[in-house]
Amino acid sequence: MAPRPLDYECINENVKKVAYAVRGELYLRASELQKEGKKIIFTNVGNPQALGQRPLTFPRQVMALCQAPMLMDDPNVSILFPADVIARAKHYLAMTTGGLGAYSDSRGLPGIRKEVAEFIERRDGYPSDPDLIFLTDGASKGVMQILNTIIRDEKDGILVPVPQYPLYSAAISLFGGTLVPYYLDESANWGLDVGDLRKSVLEARYKGITVRAMVIINPGNPTGQCLSRDNIKELLEFCYAENLVLLADEVYQQNIYQDERPFVSAKKVLMDMGLPFSKELQLVSYHTVSKGYWGECGQRGGYFEMTNIPPKTVDEIYKVASISLSPNVPGQIFLGLMVNPPKPADISYQRFVAESKAILESLRRRAHLMTDGFNNCRNVICNFTEGAMYSFPQIKLPPKAIAAAKEAGKAPDVFYCLKLLEATGMSTVPGSGFGQKEGVFHLRTTILPPEEEMPEIMNVFKIFNDDFMAKYENYSWSRL
Amino acid sequence: MAPRPLDYECINENVKKVAYAVRGELYLRASELQKEGKKIIFTNVGNPQALGQRPLTFPRQVMALCQAPMLMDDPNVSILFPADVIARAKHYLAMTTGGLGAYSDSRGLPGIRKEVAEFIERRDGYPSDPDLIFLTDGASKGVMQILNTIIRDEKDGILVPVPQYPLYSAAISLFGGTLVPYYLDESANWGLDVGDLRKSVLEARYKGITVRAMVIINPGNPTGQCLSRDNIKELLEFCYAENLVLLADEVYQQNIYQDERPFVSAKKVLMDMGLPFSKELQLVSYHTVSKGYWGECGQRGGYFEMTNIPPKTVDEIYKVASISLSPNVPGQIFLGLMVNPPKPADISYQRFVAESKAILESLRRRAHLMTDGFNNCRNVICNFTEGAMYSFPQIKLPPKAIAAAKEAGKAPDVFYCLKLLEATGMSTVPGSGFGQKEGVFHLRTTILPPEEEMPEIMNVFKIFNDDFMAKYENYSWSRL
Repeated sequence: MAPRPLDYECINENVKKVAYAVRGELYLRASELQKEGKKIIFTNVGNPQALGQRPLTFPRQVMALCQAPMLMDDPNVSILFPADVIARAKHYLAMTTGGLGAYSDSRGLPGIRKEVAEFIERRDGYPSDPDLIFLTDGASKGVMQILNTIIRDEKDGILVPVPQYPLYSAAISLFGGTLVPYYLDESANWGLDVGDLRKSVLEARYKGITVRAMVIINPGNPTGQCLSRDNIKELLEFCYAENLVLLADEVYQQNIYQDERPFVSAKKVLMDMGLPFSKELQLVSYHTVSKGYWGECGQRGGYFEMTNIPPKTVDEIYKVASISLSPNVPGQIFLGLMVNPPKPADISYQRFVAESKAILESLRRRAHLMTDGFNNCRNVICNFTEGAMYSFPQIKLPPKAIAAAKEAGKAPDVFYCLKLLEATGMSTVPGSGFGQKEGVFHLRTTILPPEEEMPEIMNVFKIFNDDFMAKYENYSWSRL
Repeated sequence: MAPRPLDYECINENVKKVAYAVRGELYLRASELQKEGKKIIFTNVGNPQALGQRPLTFPRQVMALCQAPMLMDDPNVSILFPADVIARAKHYLAMTTGGLGAYSDSRGLPGIRKEVAEFIERRDGYPSDPDLIFLTDGASKGVMQILNTIIRDEKDGILVPVPQYPLYSAAISLFGGTLVPYYLDESANWGLDVGDLRKSVLEARYKGITVRAMVIINPGNPTGQCLSRDNIKELLEFCYAENLVLLADEVYQQNIYQDERPFVSAKKVLMDMGLPFSKELQLVSYHTVSKGYWGECGQRGGYFEMTNIPPKTVDEIYKVASISLSPNVPGQIFLGLMVNPPKPADISYQRFVAESKAILESLRRRAHLMTDGFNNCRNVICNFTEGAMYSFPQIKLPPKAIAAAKEAGKAPDVFYCLKLLEATGMSTVPGSGFGQKEGVFHLRTTILPPEEEMPEIMNVFKIFNDDFMAKYENYSWSRL
């Protein structure tokens, strides 16, 4: 039989080049172990509700009525649903033509895009245009669409932080572009140095690459740092000087666990900078319902806002969005609810605030528990998670562990994470999935396990890690 | 200011090449007119609930409880929800880890994929493997993913029917492949002639194109024909002989309006053919919750099933699906409900059957009303809509109308459809958006307007059309 079009050797090479570690070897092995009956703690992906975070009550009640509007014709509806929930469901249904079962405009419902624009205006203090906001099935889909618009061929480079969330490397491979790395400085709490950026661009240019865009993730994934206003300003100036579009992944903007560096959006800093930057620099900013204290990952709701993108390009992006007709409408309504939460006078307000505050405060405590736990382990050092949902400890592997990994045919961090998984059920992602400096090893874990389980998890981790280190350090001593 | 990366002249040329008429010039003009207060009948897209089709009660009730599981802790839940709805919501929630707010596996929830496989087995009488079924945010996303896997460069050709649903042409442009057209025969009720297929492949090969896949849409969009078992067998033999993957777009499989040619899946015909075909020919089949009597377009639920695709390629497709984490979970549950509807013993069964039967029977009557209506108009001929949701009448435009269109800088069918829109508010899609033979003109409209409005709509159409024809025929006479 001759090779067929969908046989491995015949398919698109760019598809093969894609690497996506968050659901890679470790995840697949964890899934196998789970099938065999082992208890797995899935901390490989920022998926809060999978680890027991309860959804906020108000938005779920509104969504239930939007899905089943016939309930509102029932005189008993108010036994199960508060009045403000009913009002809000009507508010969103009125924005649709035919309810949740009808395709919306491919950019999303105009009424929701207006609420998003109002949210951005309140947040930043600058106008926002609903026609430059596109709703998407989660933020990732929007990132992919914009990268697909920018990348023409392998000579087009995209500056991506290392370590990075692998959505970026994967999408760049898929679209046939070139990833141009810039390194975050672990010793400066994963800070971003503009001098290094410039070096990365020069090196790329030397190789014939035209760098056309830069990605920032703020707060950082996997690194958890929050960028200061000054730092953002510097990098906007850099993008302007180098003629780069900035893609600002701001999906963790509600997840802040310190008070020194509150979240500031790239859009706000850009507008603060004034002319010529505010009118010329091209920026695309992302947000989602999957993170924050919402954690509604499975609903797939996100948006991007475009700044200084000319109408002809916006039309092209609209056209391509049209091919898949519309983002899912329930996810759009979750986004509306997120940017327009209950107000103090609403019946559901107190409960909503109590629930969301409890989640955020617990996440803040967990960020501390985890950082401290890692720093209490042999050969592990870990920056504090200032924001986002991840801890990214550095694991200093003894030479003998590295040799054992080599013998097993694994990268050293993959070897360590597999051993951790087998021993403890903790499903993490090796640092190599995000990129790290040569010879330096990390793992990424979320800070999402339930708070009451956290001390025990860190204890189990410490026992595994310290045994692992003792084993490979002892082994080395015994040979000497 | 130098051109910036997202200025029109700098973006990916493949993005610019994409054409997507379903939401093209006509749709944009209709949206403008609507903003100005004109009543528009949006028949440009198969969006039943936007035109008043009511959602089925049972699945919406189940979804409401899945979204708000806290209601099930309320002793009053049974006042609003029947017991089988409650049981079904628990059934689906038990398939998730953490409910609707958690990402699922990137292929979709294993429990739902199992229900889909069981549905396919019942339908076709052959085994189906849940691990070869991937759930997607609507069928379009799955079509795009498979085309992206197949297409390597512009030398790779995809056989696409003309007229076609423009998802295919758009996705092929976006991924940089080449569309190889094969013409459906309007005079043979849009039949597919294998001799023509062979000619298309030879012509493409002569131009240096390697044809790698073939698309069929059965029942047809926009053409409404249903393929016979013999016809499907012929084209499977053709695909085998030419070493093509077959993409079988079967999203309208529940929408059948005649009894001579019931729906038969390509998978079933392939399995019936036996060896070597059944073990070698590569097939990807699509289905959705957006069509049928469900019409849940806005929920974005779909799946594809792969046949004879080797595991290494399936792994690659899984990996790329992982980049966007997971399809939306509510849409997955709608798919589960569609393939596993209420059973005769269930409380909700009678109502479910009554609702779905009413929708299908009304669609069948509307298919007749519309075909007859078009055939009653001057210079219009129209094949009967055997299946799907569209009517695709041919409009024989007088030479003077063609000249007037040219003067207005419009394609003749665009000119006609714009006039129709301005005069009547009917938002249709010109045939050129789907492809048509040179010098032959069509429009596509859905058969979805409410049945009671259909006679008046066809009457208004007739008045417009016959006036239009009289004007441009008279004009021609007066000049002679």
